[in-house]
Formats: sequence, C-alpha cells, structure tokens
Amino acid sequence: MVSIIGAAMTPFGRHLDRTIVSLAIEATRLALQDASLAKERIGACYFANTLGPLIFGDTTLGQNLTAATGLYRIPVINVENACASGSTAFHLARNAILAGDCEVALVVGAEKMCVPDFGLINSGATELDTQLGMVVPAGFALKAQRHMYEYGTTAQQLAQVTVKSRRHAALNPLAQFRQLESMEQVLASPLIADPLTRSQCCPIADGAAALILASDDFAARMKRAVKVKASVLASGIYDGRCDLTHWETDYETVRLAYERAGIGPQDLDLVECHDAFTISEILHYEALGLCDRGEGGQLAESGATELGGRIPVNVSGGLLSRGHPIAATGLAQIVELVTQLRHEAQDRQVEGCRIALAHCMGGDKAGDTKACTVSVLAKN
Amino acid sequence: MVSIIGAAMTPFGRHLDRTIVSLAIEATRLALQDASLAKERIGACYFANTLGPLIFGDTTLGQNLTAATGLYRIPVINVENACASGSTAFHLARNAILAGDCEVALVVGAEKMCVPDFGLINSGATELDTQLGMVVPAGFALKAQRHMYEYGTTAQQLAQVTVKSRRHAALNPLAQFRQLESMEQVLASPLIADPLTRSQCCPIADGAAALILASDDFAARMKRAVKVKASVLASGIYDGRCDLTHWETDYETVRLAYERAGIGPQDLDLVECHDAFTISEILHYEALGLCDRGEGGQLAESGATELGGRIPVNVSGGLLSRGHPIAATGLAQIVELVTQLRHEAQDRQVEGCRIALAHCMGGDKAGDTKACTVSVLAKN
Repeated sequence: MVSIIGAAMTPFGRHLDRTIVSLAIEATRLALQDASLAKERIGACYFANTLGPLIFGDTTLGQNLTAATGLYRIPVINVENACASGSTAFHLARNAILAGDCEVALVVGAEKMCVPDFGLINSGATELDTQLGMVVPAGFALKAQRHMYEYGTTAQQLAQVTVKSRRHAALNPLAQFRQLESMEQVLASPLIADPLTRSQCCPIADGAAALILASDDFAARMKRAVKVKASVLASGIYDGRCDLTHWETDYETVRLAYERAGIGPQDLDLVECHDAFTISEILHYEALGLCDRGEGGQLAESGATELGGRIPVNVSGGLLSRGHPIAATGLAQIVELVTQLRHEAQDRQVEGCRIALAHCMGGDKAGDTKACTVSVLAKN
Repeated sequence: MVSIIGAAMTPFGRHLDRTIVSLAIEATRLALQDASLAKERIGACYFANTLGPLIFGDTTLGQNLTAATGLYRIPVINVENACASGSTAFHLARNAILAGDCEVALVVGAEKMCVPDFGLINSGATELDTQLGMVVPAGFALKAQRHMYEYGTTAQQLAQVTVKSRRHAALNPLAQFRQLESMEQVLASPLIADPLTRSQCCPIADGAAALILASDDFAARMKRAVKVKASVLASGIYDGRCDLTHWETDYETVRLAYERAGIGPQDLDLVECHDAFTISEILHYEALGLCDRGEGGQLAESGATELGGRIPVNVSGGLLSRGHPIAATGLAQIVELVTQLRHEAQDRQVEGCRIALAHCMGGDKAGDTKACTVSVLAKN
C-alpha cells in the first residue's frame, strides 16, 4: 500500500498577481515542510493542470515547477482529466509507487482562472451538445429539476447544501467564501440556471494543493502518515442512455472503492465530495450510500452531513465555498482528509475521525462523467 | 514485466478532413485488430495529446476516444509531456499494469497540427528565453554550431542524417516524406536556422499511434507479443549550466535504461531516436553510446546507422521523414520496434532483430530537456 506523508495547499481565491507555477511552488514547499522531507527524496512529480494551455497557451508546466524548486532529473508527468485532474494525478503517483517506479512521489494540482475575460468552462468545447447550449450549469440544473420532479426534492433542500457549506468554510482559513449565508440569501442570489442560483454554483478560483506519497516502507516510522486504503479511477458509459438523477459511473466507482478498502458507507467518519453545484452533493450522497436513492435532499435537510452530524460532508467548505481551482480541487479534498485524520483540523475537527473518503468527478458526456475518482484514507 | 500485444498507427502526414479523435479511433481499431483482442479486455486508456487545447480549445480528448469506441467505465487518463507525451503515456500504462491497476491497457497518442495559421511550436510559450527568440529550431541550430566548432562535425555529416532518413522512409508506407533527397538537395533547401536547412527539420504532421500493453501472464500465449525490458522517464536538470553539445538527462536516462534492461549499446539491433533535427540524431548517437562523444557526425557519415549497417537508426524514417505529430511520435517509434522485433517490417526489416530501443525527448528548458524517455524491447 501507499501512504501520504505530506499535505498542503495555498489559500483558494483570487490571486491576481500569481502565476500557476508560483502557486504550485508554494503548495510544494508547504507539503515538503509538512512532511519534514528533504526535496532530494522526491522520486517523481505528477502535475495536474487543466486550463493553462487554454488560458495562457502554455504546456509542460510540471517541469517549470520542478525547475523552480530544484527537483532535478525525476520523471515529471503532466496530467489533465477535467475537474478530476488532481485526483487522477494522485492515482497515477500511487500506481508509480506500487509499480516500484519510485518510493516517494510529489503530486501537485494548480490552476489560475481569475483572469479578465475568462468565460464559462466546458469540458467539451468542440462537442455538439455544448455548442447547442448544454454548458455546465445548464446540465446540472436539468439534473436538479429532474430530482425535484422524481423525488420531491425542494429548493430549500438544495439551498441547505450551500448554507452548510458556508458554515463549514467559515471554520477553514484557506477557503474562498467564508461568510455565512442564510437560506433566504442563497435562494435570493441571482438565478444562473433554474433552480440553481449563483450561491449554488461553485466559484472559479486560483490555488494549488500538493501531496507527498510514499511507499509504506518509507512511511513506516512517520507518525503523521495516512494510509491510502483504496484509489479508484473510472470514466463513464457514453451510450447516450441518461438517467438525469444519477451518474452510473459514480455508483460503480464508489462500489469498487468500498470493496477494495473493505469498508461500507457506515464505516466513514468524513466525506469530501464533488459539490460543484448543490444538486451534485445531493446526488453524491446517494451514490455514496449515505442515504437511499431519492433521499439526498432529505439528508441535506436533516443536518446529518453537517459538522457534528452522523456523517459530515465537505467540512472544508467543499467546491462551493473552499473554491474550485479545477486541477487543485481533487488534491485539496485529500489535504482536508489528511488534516482531519491527523486530528489537526482545529475548529472544524471531526471527532474520532479514522476513515475518510474523497470523491471527485470531472467532465460530462452523453449523460455520464468523463472521470470519477474515489479514494479511501485511514490513519496508520 | 509487461508485454506489448498490439501495435498500429495511421499514416502520418496531412489529414485535413480528420479530427484528433478520428485519427485516434483509427489507430485504436488497428491496434485491437493487430492484437486480435476484444475491446472489452481493455482495462485502462492512457491518451496523449499536446496541442488539442492550444489549437482547438478542447480537453479530455481521451474520453471522446473511449466514448466513440465503446470502451466504457475504464480509467481514462489524458497526458501531456511535450514531444514525449506518447512515450510518457506508455510509461504510465506500464506502471498501471505493474501496480495491478489493470491487466491490459490501451495507449494512444494523437495529434493534428496541419491547420491554417498554425505557427511555430514552443514548449514554453510564456518563458523569457522563448520570447527573446529562442524558439525550437534556433536552439537546435546553436547545438549544431557548437558541435561543429568543438568536434569538427561538417554540414555534410548533418545532411547525411536526412539523406538516410528519406531512404528509410521510402520503404515505409506510413511515412510522410517518402521521396529520396540527395545530399545536395538537403543542403540547398531553404535555411531555417544556420546550419539547419528545411530538410533537416522534422515536419508538422497529423496522425495517431496506438499500443496495447498487457501483463506477462496475459500475454503468455500470444506469439507476437514483445517484452518491455525497461522503461525510463526523466526530466532535466534546470540549473542554467548548459553544455550545448549534450543533454545531461539524455545520458542519464539511457544509462538507467541499459542498467534496468541488463544490456549495453553493443546488444542493440535497432534504435528509434528523437531526430527532431539532424543534429539531434547525432547528439543521441553519442548519448546512446553508439559512438564516443564528438563522433556522432562521423558515425552518420560512415553508414553504420543505415539499414544493413552495424546499428540501424530510425529505419521508420524517424521524425524527419515519418513525420512528427507530437504526441503520436513516441508511440510510433515503439510501433516500429514491435514491427521489427516480430520480423514483419517487409522491405525495411532489420535482419535478426532481437533487441531494440526507443528514445524520445520533449521540451527544452535552461539547456536541458523537459522529458526524456527510453524504452528497451525484446521479442518474447
């Protein structure tokens, strides 16, 4: 197995004076510091970025990071997998260690989106449905509408996800939106795609997160190490069949992760899931087995997923409030899990946190997701 | 260890009416056919592309390939590593199999560059030296000048690399430039960056190549399988020290690959190396130990690296004549090795080919390379 021995992230938000690489350098230095590790021990670097080529016309940014930090002659791999880019890089670094390709790997995700004239993000800009108007918020609004129609999910239940998210983010000094919002405020914010108001859509952001992974042998004497019990990556079924109230691949990835980790949803103490929109979190509750199909809205309303509840979800603030610098997100989720499993989360610590799960999803095509990752972590 | 059980590529050249994904689909179908494998056996897809986001504004193209070919629910990973994108994807697929993440993996590299108004390629568009004029051909021209100054390498020796390349490509039906060129023609072609004439620079191209990798257990009964004896990926030392006549990482990657494969240069029957410019091939001769430092020009002149010579290099035509659709190149090199090791290369078959090496390199920064890969293959 593989362990995480270092974890860190920059604050997420607007960093107008920073480059992608400068953010990546900061996260890398913090992660090395967190691991008390000399950079010479790093045997590979997996770098995730999504929008650098599109916004800045630049490529091979991972090598610019290693150049700037003096990480010489190691394999550097640049990965892109839409919103799951960071967690895909994590999965690849784990593979490299398991394959014996290296003993210690650095994984970094960094993104810069807060630039003038940057428009909507689409994971398939040249595809027909995108060009016909099926941009990201529209797709999620359709899912929300269908969930409301099929299961009686209410606008208030959706909005509650944001209310909780802001409460959690208020306790996270690295989150982008730390101001509380009331149910009324969430519902009254400008409508983006009915029923999703602006407060129910995650923001664009600048930021970076970094992890250091090591073989279990290497990590054996490190007291703050966290074990990776399972890491699963899958892409969708794109056969045009589409049930708007779930992604089939979401369920399948979760099932495999539970199977490989030898646990079930009842064993989880904490979940970070891909709440790009409020409806996403509700759909993921169901995929993760935190409740039955159709009951996600009620689960949100019940308070069970709040800090102190039965199964806290997105205690970091999630994408909705921590912010969503695309390729950094999957790693920021894992940074939160590591922090919680080490019992270092201060004001937002989940009591007795022993087993935690991160769930990330990227892109959409023909009703399914282009990449879904689930990682299960546990304290050594 | 890991074996290659399927290998194929599209013709390289101008495919004005094709998309990146359409080229990738063709290569994938041919590779599945070559392996006599049902697509359901594929457990992961590693997709390499470099310029899709820059030219077409599109991302997650690997998933568009799997969607179109009905490869559902497997991990799909999009990789970018400049000119070494394809070979990096190959390396990651090998890691995945060694890590037990899958038993059979598809690796595809595809690129479309022949579009109107597409300018020079730079691997660091936002970097200072690029903006000051150090575009790719300029950098290689400096290397050539220095090699001529230090070692007495001649313009004729450089040009001989292209003469040989065209001779080889004339025997390869999938190559882009199949017309013979004489020494005089190569030297008289328009000067791009002194001493490199146009015929000494590899062309842009459209094309795709695909490989199917499998665990040795899976490949055990497949008679045409080829073993991956070693795969090494490294990035450079970017400390600003720069000896123009070699890349330090080139030497180091080669050394590790020989060590891990348990062979030396004398054991090789065939080499495909990254001849982006004529000077590149000469420098790689030296890094690969096919001759001593400074003697690359003489080796080119001697004919030893021609088909029928002591150690044939780039029998496919190489980047100079097979063409260089960036992310497809590293895989096309391996397709050639597999074809030769199976003794299926017809007119250009290297007699008694048993051990072959592919060498790929991408990007340039502070005098070293951003990614260098070396793979050693042998017939099962």
